[in-house]
Amino acid sequence: MQYFPAALQELADQFARLPGIGGKTAQRLAFYVLGLPMEDAQSFADAIIDAKNTVHTCPVCQNLTDRDICAVCDDDMRDKSVVCVVAEPKDVIALERSREFNGVYHVLHGVISPLNHITQDDIRIRELLARVANGDIREVIMATNPDTEGEATAMYISRLLRPMEVKVTRLAYGIPVGSQLEYADEVTLSRALEGRQEI
Amino acid sequence: MQYFPAALQELADQFARLPGIGGKTAQRLAFYVLGLPMEDAQSFADAIIDAKNTVHTCPVCQNLTDRDICAVCDDDMRDKSVVCVVAEPKDVIALERSREFNGVYHVLHGVISPLNHITQDDIRIRELLARVANGDIREVIMATNPDTEGEATAMYISRLLRPMEVKVTRLAYGIPVGSQLEYADEVTLSRALEGRQEI
Repeated sequence: MQYFPAALQELADQFARLPGIGGKTAQRLAFYVLGLPMEDAQSFADAIIDAKNTVHTCPVCQNLTDRDICAVCDDDMRDKSVVCVVAEPKDVIALERSREFNGVYHVLHGVISPLNHITQDDIRIRELLARVANGDIREVIMATNPDTEGEATAMYISRLLRPMEVKVTRLAYGIPVGSQLEYADEVTLSRALEGRQEI
Repeated sequence: MQYFPAALQELADQFARLPGIGGKTAQRLAFYVLGLPMEDAQSFADAIIDAKNTVHTCPVCQNLTDRDICAVCDDDMRDKSVVCVVAEPKDVIALERSREFNGVYHVLHGVISPLNHITQDDIRIRELLARVANGDIREVIMATNPDTEGEATAMYISRLLRPMEVKVTRLAYGIPVGSQLEYADEVTLSRALEGRQEI
């Protein structure tokens, strides 16, 4: 016997397909949507279609945008000769929040991860190489996450860039501002010592 | 400066409105939906609208259904003289899984909860009283959750039913099958002792 009306079950199944949403949570979300006023449910459905229809990647930096060219690449005040390479669009947001960087970005949409069957051809390395080959780029800052896969991806790309006469740098490692020395791990501390600077 | 394309931000905001979904999770879900093929995104959007359009409450038992009268109320093999009162549609599913109950249901859609401003008029008690007043109902089984609000709701309804010449019962308390005595809490154990039966 079928316990739920088919349309409710289908909605719960749709939620259950989302990452990190289990069966029980999916059911709860389906019940919640069912309890919404019709116009709210409609704007939820519309938001899904709108996002799919209007959001695409910037042809220059591969970041997500709803314009022909993204706001950063289109901004004449930004220094186009410095490119910061990040793994995901959300990393751009984190860097923009720091208000420190005035160059442009390149979004890889992932990192090389053999365990997850993501190879160098699955992320946007080719587009980065084409940018460096074509343009007047002075410096490429590797800003992937400081974990194994982020490091490996940064090393792989920097090796490809070496023959291209461009300066390749990496974000500094060290103790985070506002943290306490006693809670810093050994690797971070030794990197902070290595990278010490005169004051 | 706006960091996300507006349509992506709107989709993330829609997800963030769902219960138990925080800002970061909502962003992750929005990115995931953006990565889906268009037909999958379309069927997600359709599922929301379909559920809203086709699912409503059964006019007899108030359970959710996509038919005129729900499958249980419409089944001639079920004993219409025994009504099991539950708080939520998912409780019907739990009871149906036990394959033990051959009567019909009444879904309250909530319990009385002064802390959450849910009064007796916000849940479907009126409909239950009308059913008992109209029909040939012998027994009403209160099957709300064995917590404070579930208990209070069961007591409130049973007091309303008392003048109506109908037998009102409550699900048995006791130790759950398959559990171990040493892990049972005191209240459950004392209820299990009170309710002991001859073997």
